[in-house]
Amino acid sequence: MASKFAAKSSAKARVGVLGASGYTGSELVRLLLRHPNVELALLTADRRAGQEMRAVFPQFSPFKLPTLVSIEGLDWKKAALDLAFCALPHATTQKVIGDLLAQAPNTKVVDLSADFRLHDVAAYARWYGHEHHTPKLQREAVYGLVEVHRAAIRKARLVANPGCYTSCAQLALTPLLKAKAIVPGEIVIDAKSGMTGAGRAAKEEMLFSEVSEGFHAYGVGHHRHMAELDQEFSAAAGREVTVTFTPHLVPMNRGILSTIYVRGTKGKSVEDLHAILLKYYAKEPFVHVLPFGQTPQTRHVRGSNMTFIGVAKDRVPGRAIVISALDNLVKGASGQAVQNMNLMLGYPEALGLEQVALFP
Amino acid sequence: MASKFAAKSSAKARVGVLGASGYTGSELVRLLLRHPNVELALLTADRRAGQEMRAVFPQFSPFKLPTLVSIEGLDWKKAALDLAFCALPHATTQKVIGDLLAQAPNTKVVDLSADFRLHDVAAYARWYGHEHHTPKLQREAVYGLVEVHRAAIRKARLVANPGCYTSCAQLALTPLLKAKAIVPGEIVIDAKSGMTGAGRAAKEEMLFSEVSEGFHAYGVGHHRHMAELDQEFSAAAGREVTVTFTPHLVPMNRGILSTIYVRGTKGKSVEDLHAILLKYYAKEPFVHVLPFGQTPQTRHVRGSNMTFIGVAKDRVPGRAIVISALDNLVKGASGQAVQNMNLMLGYPEALGLEQVALFP
Amino acid sequence: MASKFAAKSSAKARVGVLGASGYTGSELVRLLLRHPNVELALLTADRRAGQEMRAVFPQFSPFKLPTLVSIEGLDWKKAALDLAFCALPHATTQKVIGDLLAQAPNTKVVDLSADFRLHDVAAYARWYGHEHHTPKLQREAVYGLVEVHRAAIRKARLVANPGCYTSCAQLALTPLLKAKAIVPGEIVIDAKSGMTGAGRAAKEEMLFSEVSEGFHAYGVGHHRHMAELDQEFSAAAGREVTVTFTPHLVPMNRGILSTIYVRGTKGKSVEDLHAILLKYYAKEPFVHVLPFGQTPQTRHVRGSNMTFIGVAKDRVPGRAIVISALDNLVKGASGQAVQNMNLMLGYPEALGLEQVALFP
Amino acid sequence: MASKFAAKSSAKARVGVLGASGYTGSELVRLLLRHPNVELALLTADRRAGQEMRAVFPQFSPFKLPTLVSIEGLDWKKAALDLAFCALPHATTQKVIGDLLAQAPNTKVVDLSADFRLHDVAAYARWYGHEHHTPKLQREAVYGLVEVHRAAIRKARLVANPGCYTSCAQLALTPLLKAKAIVPGEIVIDAKSGMTGAGRAAKEEMLFSEVSEGFHAYGVGHHRHMAELDQEFSAAAGREVTVTFTPHLVPMNRGILSTIYVRGTKGKSVEDLHAILLKYYAKEPFVHVLPFGQTPQTRHVRGSNMTFIGVAKDRVPGRAIVISALDNLVKGASGQAVQNMNLMLGYPEALGLEQVALFP
Repeated sequence: MASKFAAKSSAKARVGVLGASGYTGSELVRLLLRHPNVELALLTADRRAGQEMRAVFPQFSPFKLPTLVSIEGLDWKKAALDLAFCALPHATTQKVIGDLLAQAPNTKVVDLSADFRLHDVAAYARWYGHEHHTPKLQREAVYGLVEVHRAAIRKARLVANPGCYTSCAQLALTPLLKAKAIVPGEIVIDAKSGMTGAGRAAKEEMLFSEVSEGFHAYGVGHHRHMAELDQEFSAAAGREVTVTFTPHLVPMNRGILSTIYVRGTKGKSVEDLHAILLKYYAKEPFVHVLPFGQTPQTRHVRGSNMTFIGVAKDRVPGRAIVISALDNLVKGASGQAVQNMNLMLGYPEALGLEQVALFP
Repeated sequence: MASKFAAKSSAKARVGVLGASGYTGSELVRLLLRHPNVELALLTADRRAGQEMRAVFPQFSPFKLPTLVSIEGLDWKKAALDLAFCALPHATTQKVIGDLLAQAPNTKVVDLSADFRLHDVAAYARWYGHEHHTPKLQREAVYGLVEVHRAAIRKARLVANPGCYTSCAQLALTPLLKAKAIVPGEIVIDAKSGMTGAGRAAKEEMLFSEVSEGFHAYGVGHHRHMAELDQEFSAAAGREVTVTFTPHLVPMNRGILSTIYVRGTKGKSVEDLHAILLKYYAKEPFVHVLPFGQTPQTRHVRGSNMTFIGVAKDRVPGRAIVISALDNLVKGASGQAVQNMNLMLGYPEALGLEQVALFP
Repeated sequence: MASKFAAKSSAKARVGVLGASGYTGSELVRLLLRHPNVELALLTADRRAGQEMRAVFPQFSPFKLPTLVSIEGLDWKKAALDLAFCALPHATTQKVIGDLLAQAPNTKVVDLSADFRLHDVAAYARWYGHEHHTPKLQREAVYGLVEVHRAAIRKARLVANPGCYTSCAQLALTPLLKAKAIVPGEIVIDAKSGMTGAGRAAKEEMLFSEVSEGFHAYGVGHHRHMAELDQEFSAAAGREVTVTFTPHLVPMNRGILSTIYVRGTKGKSVEDLHAILLKYYAKEPFVHVLPFGQTPQTRHVRGSNMTFIGVAKDRVPGRAIVISALDNLVKGASGQAVQNMNLMLGYPEALGLEQVALFP
Repeated sequence: MASKFAAKSSAKARVGVLGASGYTGSELVRLLLRHPNVELALLTADRRAGQEMRAVFPQFSPFKLPTLVSIEGLDWKKAALDLAFCALPHATTQKVIGDLLAQAPNTKVVDLSADFRLHDVAAYARWYGHEHHTPKLQREAVYGLVEVHRAAIRKARLVANPGCYTSCAQLALTPLLKAKAIVPGEIVIDAKSGMTGAGRAAKEEMLFSEVSEGFHAYGVGHHRHMAELDQEFSAAAGREVTVTFTPHLVPMNRGILSTIYVRGTKGKSVEDLHAILLKYYAKEPFVHVLPFGQTPQTRHVRGSNMTFIGVAKDRVPGRAIVISALDNLVKGASGQAVQNMNLMLGYPEALGLEQVALFP
């Protein structure tokens, strides 16, 4: 299927963004507008249906884009999408993707919600408090962290794009867990995110005056991203892993930084951990491991699809501090989603994702 | 000369950035790294000579770039640059460009300092307190605001890239002055800039704790950008124009917004002013005039080479409020410079400048 | 009435804050908690009735405060307030104050809404699109800018606390208009406000990610604060004055800075304007005129009840730039309200308002 | 000695601030200006000697303050200070305090630098790379965390004010270590600070454009504050304690938040930890323990001398997350210093420190 595009080089894939009025939606539009092999064929936004994208996001004023439509009553067969990005809230996603794939089984889907990230229907029910509405699709879905599941993603019809916090932590820890180089029971992830991670819904606690000039933790001890971390870390380690994870909010728009405290397994020095990461990512276009002892800043990956990882020695012998940084809207969401699309459609993996970070 | 590149399509121009350790320098590198027709052949930074660019700007860590060298003792003939961007401070620029063009007269230069912006040697001496060191080059230099001087820029060897404040104000006012649609003696420009406009030099008054969470005017009544405004506005109006201009600092990194108060000349309605701007910029790729009554925000042009302009009615009859917004590091500096380069080298004007604004 | 407190020195006035869950409400509580002559006897917040203040504003966690109650069904006679601050939205204010003063005619009221600021019932109807509900009270109300109406405020029962933008502009211009030192027809006020001025209501356009890292104007040409400016400036000048006024939003929490462009009347130099302001405010505790040529920053008045004013020469002969800065939540709202209370209750005017600005 | 002030109630202590041009210096002036028992008798600032405080910190423009003088050649006997705050850099502090106490042995000193915090001369030499210049004073100095060493501070002549990071962590952990309720070998402190913690020196890496809109760790694995943590935690635990500690920079002016990961000792539940803290701080005016499960935000203590502490359960059994927040310039520096002064001079401990946090 993907080869179709490779074959007829001038053809562009017809792509839709479901939920274009949120931040991950607009970020997809930003990236796809400049993607050489993509035609933006459909943009949906229920509350803003009938409006132009420029009314919702003025940065698109100079560009021609499809008028926003409601997802209600769309004929997915007629839409004839090669691929749909689904950036919808938790409640509606399962239904929409179920309908879409029933009507247009050849359309591929990258879902940016949490709905298809858990493989285990029981785990899903436990974390979300209800049965999954499309358990068959839940089983079909491939977890979309490219650097870990590249081969499966290439063949997937439905990809569950990972969460931003979990992407950031997994890119730092998965190679170490796979190599059995760190003690799985002693991992502490202290994560800090910019405000766009909370989305665009109008909530008092996300007003500028509430969150600027200050810092705080939230969801201490009980955050839904943990389910995803458990699944992926346990798979990487080959045993059950339960990490300590605390998210915080930073008064900035974009970026996640995870400060991760680990202990090396017997015989593994901190330098060994660094070497494992360096080797694992040697050929990856979007993960960059800094020289030993250097640690990253979120601002240096802003707007790019890059992840920076640093490893430093703790003064407590045997312990290391691993720090990873990415842009939650790019590598943590929409950039990752486009990377998945590129694989699913047989394009070069980095196509449309080459922009350099915007600093300052 | 420019046609050389058009001719041998696979050839890339050899380009240098003089002063790569400042913000306009790094912004040039960001844009040129992804420019399809450019080879970054030389990066200079006197205080950081011998270091890699990644040590000065970690966002470039994943990329191969020339090691930073000192400008002292460079052999410009051997450097064999097709074009040099000069992002050096006021004091040294004239000497460096003088030497460069003496040794390598075929190299083209885009200068981002204020040194070559004034055509009149007397005006230069008056504003800067000393004679120009290379008056001949001063007279040769073309003022590089593309939307006003495109034809001359195409043929220029030395282009003086405009200042950020002046670009923002000129794009809003020049078409109106040319059309004699506003009264030249009653223009008030209240301008607001992000902090990168102050550069990267370590000054107490630019520390985060000094400038965050607050707002202030500076240089009230006496700012050097005025010389440039006088020259360009007088040329556009065909008579001497002296505007009122007050710059302010906003606690943000990027962006300039100019709120401009004008009075229409007899018979010119505010709607007429809007229509003049709309027509003037109808085919411009980097200036977008908003629908009547709408006004721009700096964040919607962030990281892009775009300028947004809005026109609204004042409640005082006959008066209009024109507001323009651009990113001071892109359209206000390095993006404009690349646009100039594209013209000087015969490339498509928008090449390498297509990125969409990064919002949020 | 006021003398009662002066007489029995140990007695404290029973004070209520109606609308304690908004920013002006919490700011009143912050100031009144440390006011030596005040007992906080009543806090209302309809949506949060039954909750403790610490649940709404955690900074009050260590303090004992009355539980929040609904304003519905309150018995104002039984409440026995000496003074009530009303920090309610436009719609409900008139009704609440009407009821309160009907039941408890000896309670004094400082209203922080716009409802009682216009003396002219016709002007009110024109600007707000409906008749005033309590026109008798509208006529009784005294406009509460202390530095202009001190004597009337001392004797008032109902004081209309001025708007934040208008306070800032009036403190700069009223003495100049009274002295007929500036041309009333050529005033341009370019105003910039922090985000708390928009209140605490959950609106998409006030989310951190929407308003940080950027700058924009709003309400261009048509802002309700203009009615108040017209009234007060016309009174000061002794003739009708219509100013140009444009508000902007700055990514900071607190502060308003007004950059005001004026022309001196015949024979009045810019130095004369400065001298007039210096003399007018010589003994005022909360307005400080900077030395000639110096201009203020909002951060230097943050958290204090102070206004800073600077005067500088424009390079256009005869024109001056007057810049004033205050904290919109203190001198622009709650601090001003406490200053009014002090006068109305016969206390020393500065009582409880002595805190020095919090910078950085 | 202290009783002198209690006795003659109208007398004010003569107080000096050495190093008034930095942020802790200006914060001392802010607090002391409103302290009822203090006369600000001396302000020093070497680079700004001869200038008025308002030239260095415009927020003090309305106030009368002593002209800044150089510390060189001051006659400490003639200065006749009851107490001096020393807010000088590391290099000069020991010499200045040595001279001062030699000339004026009855003057009391609160030192805000790190110079006198370590009791052990060997530990000092190891961490700072040289012998202490006044080892006798080093031994005399009392560590000034009031909530831990109140009795000793009352009798001290020289108090070493604690560091901001260490204050924040100690207030959370000391009661738990004293109660042997947590495992000393498994403490991870992930600390985040606002930018004022870096002081006012002009450094490129602290420019607004370098540190806004981003987040990063620094000094990973090797921060001097660790020496202080080791000393105080070991004393509290009665055995050697070495914690893991990572500081980060948040794009805000004020505030430190410490997210601390601990494991309860056998039989100690997370609820027990909370109860221990609640009891320990029951009567403390400046430490507030939140209800179980609630965690603090830095913004809710901004500008106040308050520390908020929260305790929550980790999902890993037996582990707890303790979070503490304070304003690094107040409870983390100058407020703590005034609290020390109050004890040393026999004043009520909270005098002049009653201001409520400034939020938003």
